[in-house]
Amino acid sequence: MEKEKKLVEAITPMDEDFAKWYTDVVLKAELCDYSNLKGFIIYRPYGYAIWENIQKFMDARFKETGHENVCMPLLIPESLLQKEKDHVAGFAPEVAWVTQGGSEPLTERLCVRPTSEVLFCEHWAKIVQSYKDLPLLYNQWNSVVRWEKTTRPFLRGAEFLWQEGHTIHATKEDAMAETIQMLEVYVETCEELLAIPVIKGRKTEKERFAGAEATYTIESLMHDGKALQCGTSHYFGDGFARVFDIQYADKEGKLQYVHQTSWGLSTRIIGALVMVHGDDSGLVLPPRMAPTQVVIIPIATHKEGVVEKATELKNRLNKVARVKLDVSDKMPGWKFSEYEMKGIPLRIEIGPKDIEKNQVVLVRRDNREKTVISMDELEAKVPEMLEAIQKDLYDKAQKLQTAKTTSAQSMEELRDILDKQAGFVKGMWCGDRACEDKVKEVAAASSRCLPFDQEKVGETCICCGKPTETLVIWGRAY
Amino acid sequence: MEKEKKLVEAITPMDEDFAKWYTDVVLKAELCDYSNLKGFIIYRPYGYAIWENIQKFMDARFKETGHENVCMPLLIPESLLQKEKDHVAGFAPEVAWVTQGGSEPLTERLCVRPTSEVLFCEHWAKIVQSYKDLPLLYNQWNSVVRWEKTTRPFLRGAEFLWQEGHTIHATKEDAMAETIQMLEVYVETCEELLAIPVIKGRKTEKERFAGAEATYTIESLMHDGKALQCGTSHYFGDGFARVFDIQYADKEGKLQYVHQTSWGLSTRIIGALVMVHGDDSGLVLPPRMAPTQVVIIPIATHKEGVVEKATELKNRLNKVARVKLDVSDKMPGWKFSEYEMKGIPLRIEIGPKDIEKNQVVLVRRDNREKTVISMDELEAKVPEMLEAIQKDLYDKAQKLQTAKTTSAQSMEELRDILDKQAGFVKGMWCGDRACEDKVKEVAAASSRCLPFDQEKVGETCICCGKPTETLVIWGRAY
Repeated sequence: MEKEKKLVEAITPMDEDFAKWYTDVVLKAELCDYSNLKGFIIYRPYGYAIWENIQKFMDARFKETGHENVCMPLLIPESLLQKEKDHVAGFAPEVAWVTQGGSEPLTERLCVRPTSEVLFCEHWAKIVQSYKDLPLLYNQWNSVVRWEKTTRPFLRGAEFLWQEGHTIHATKEDAMAETIQMLEVYVETCEELLAIPVIKGRKTEKERFAGAEATYTIESLMHDGKALQCGTSHYFGDGFARVFDIQYADKEGKLQYVHQTSWGLSTRIIGALVMVHGDDSGLVLPPRMAPTQVVIIPIATHKEGVVEKATELKNRLNKVARVKLDVSDKMPGWKFSEYEMKGIPLRIEIGPKDIEKNQVVLVRRDNREKTVISMDELEAKVPEMLEAIQKDLYDKAQKLQTAKTTSAQSMEELRDILDKQAGFVKGMWCGDRACEDKVKEVAAASSRCLPFDQEKVGETCICCGKPTETLVIWGRAY
Repeated sequence: MEKEKKLVEAITPMDEDFAKWYTDVVLKAELCDYSNLKGFIIYRPYGYAIWENIQKFMDARFKETGHENVCMPLLIPESLLQKEKDHVAGFAPEVAWVTQGGSEPLTERLCVRPTSEVLFCEHWAKIVQSYKDLPLLYNQWNSVVRWEKTTRPFLRGAEFLWQEGHTIHATKEDAMAETIQMLEVYVETCEELLAIPVIKGRKTEKERFAGAEATYTIESLMHDGKALQCGTSHYFGDGFARVFDIQYADKEGKLQYVHQTSWGLSTRIIGALVMVHGDDSGLVLPPRMAPTQVVIIPIATHKEGVVEKATELKNRLNKVARVKLDVSDKMPGWKFSEYEMKGIPLRIEIGPKDIEKNQVVLVRRDNREKTVISMDELEAKVPEMLEAIQKDLYDKAQKLQTAKTTSAQSMEELRDILDKQAGFVKGMWCGDRACEDKVKEVAAASSRCLPFDQEKVGETCICCGKPTETLVIWGRAY
């Protein structure tokens, strides 16, 4: 029993040490494990099943919007990475270099892809000829490597899993529409599947992707009030096209450069899932993406008919939900804790007395609410309750976000607010990089985005005091 | 029109130069493209869609048989790779080494995974404690890197996509049953999904996977009579478990070593698909796995009602098959050739005269057979015909395999047969490695497998003449 007990007791309470709580949850819920190589995690079955469900949802949206999956090489020759100057400046300092193949040193270093823009560009330059070839709407699911020094499971890794979409278009307008469309797919993924409310906006030049003309982002707020960038969508204009010579003949036969986008969402989002919905008992998963939505725990399994009845319920529920039945010989209380740790949205308890009364007990993971229902109502009530949980999780997160969103008129006020309670802070900004740097220095806050929903919380830049119309969401971020 | 014409005319006939034919097909059908890095190919949308369909089929079988997907790190520290001596001897000469991370040289070299046994072992040693934890049935879909000198798209690459299954079990019997079960999943994938008949058997010690106690294989025969290994399943015994100290407490509390398996099937199988079913017009895809099963080509699209009727047919057929409608302004003849190149199993032609007669013309890709059917029969006939094509492709491949399978009593006879016509050659073998090496030297043939269906085609080893009961399938292989 000792080992079993440990599993449940070992979580550090959130309020005591949020970072420790986070690490405890991702390890104890068996989402991942450390490997012996720093920054490289092992995605265990439960963590990977979560990623698979996210992939399934997104991949269907990608295909509905006309995208096709491809797979580019893992390694990029140094000379190719160096072609676009801003891009290489952004990535070269943090890549892993392959210098030896088999027993021979390589004549040119190869980097393990940190992102694949240059590979797509090189390929497109070869295959694109006419306007009829456009647009090309590609995506790939892969892992990338960035040699990060400070790493945390899911949030920042030397290796992480993601999808990277890459598209080229005949016109600026088409490329811009794509950039925004894919940002909206990310919004949908976060809000509808993961129950994570997000703020949409544009990144400042400082926070922009290396080589992009514009980077759009969705930002969410974790339970501790820190911000997390959930996904980004980049508009490149024809910058890469000019460097890589990706041209097409338009209807008049005139050569034109293509306009390009890329967009990515990574396993970081699993970190967001944990930190938005989790509590001191572990994970809390939104039903729509939970690998297991309902766990059935029979009470007094040795009593005649209990396991049989529980199995019958499982077979019935299988048709309307993803269900697991645990008939192992562990104690019910231990099972309750284990599946709470794993964030299973709904628990069904069934014992001899329930069978007598033709009822079952439903217990919600999110608020522990118990409901007794007739067994006859099972197929109707369970999906209903799952949808209610999904909605309530979103509302709760939205409420937290609203409660933790304030505004500031000066850098000092911003700092004081954030020192007291982390969150999103609205503050005006003149557009000057120097002011953005100064805010970072004084308030330890970064610009999360220029939100699409602009409002006027003040008249002047919180740093230099110059009049401005531009609102920035500031915060301390993962 | 010049570019359009070229697409169709540029295939080298199979009998003229099989290798050139193969490369032409994989490039012209747009399955893949070369990158600028030797041995690293780009999986283009059509090639990747084929892989996705294979993945979907296999992943469902893996899950039905209780396996879970995981994801291990991309990089392996040199010291970890070196732990199992046979394993490192097999793989170290052909790996890519990362020696630099960001701007700093690493203190220990890391190899890009050529396969992930050691990563799984290290993880298992940490997490396995009791017999209750077993079996662990894991799989991962990823890419691996092997620094091959001679590379060909899909067949042999410096990088390739695959799945690698890794499992541990309490007993030898369980592990062996798993090894064989997964080999059977591969058989099913090849025969039922891809219409590729295979021979099942065990590899000789020489051809065994580095570190395995036994390697099982499925072997298929290409159109040119050369053999191709389609998938392998390995039984490790407790060899790795002893090196990595993976032990569990059995029911009596006694520590025992686990028994292990691994099994893999790669994008090589796409090469097999091309070489088993393809012809001088390009790819021929088995309907069950074809990304597009039916292409509808309207004739005289400018005539009133043609495009509308074709669209109506598409919408009807969408419910029973994966259908594409091509209403582009290219000539029908060009479209015919293009979709033949891409191997779409069934073409539907519909023109004004067909509409008048309430009929459509069906043309099979595999044998060019034309059938005129009433439009009313569409939903009934099309799936029927697709299944007929699937069956006929398998039968044709099986017939070819039978025709190209012979037997030999001596090495010299083996050589003469293979020089005249490549194929599978049955020949007895004493079990001695020296004889196997000699056969390689004299007849340029390798042992493909010791088939499960053993028979007695002779009394003595084809090399040394010693009496033996063991049959080997010999061949020249990709």
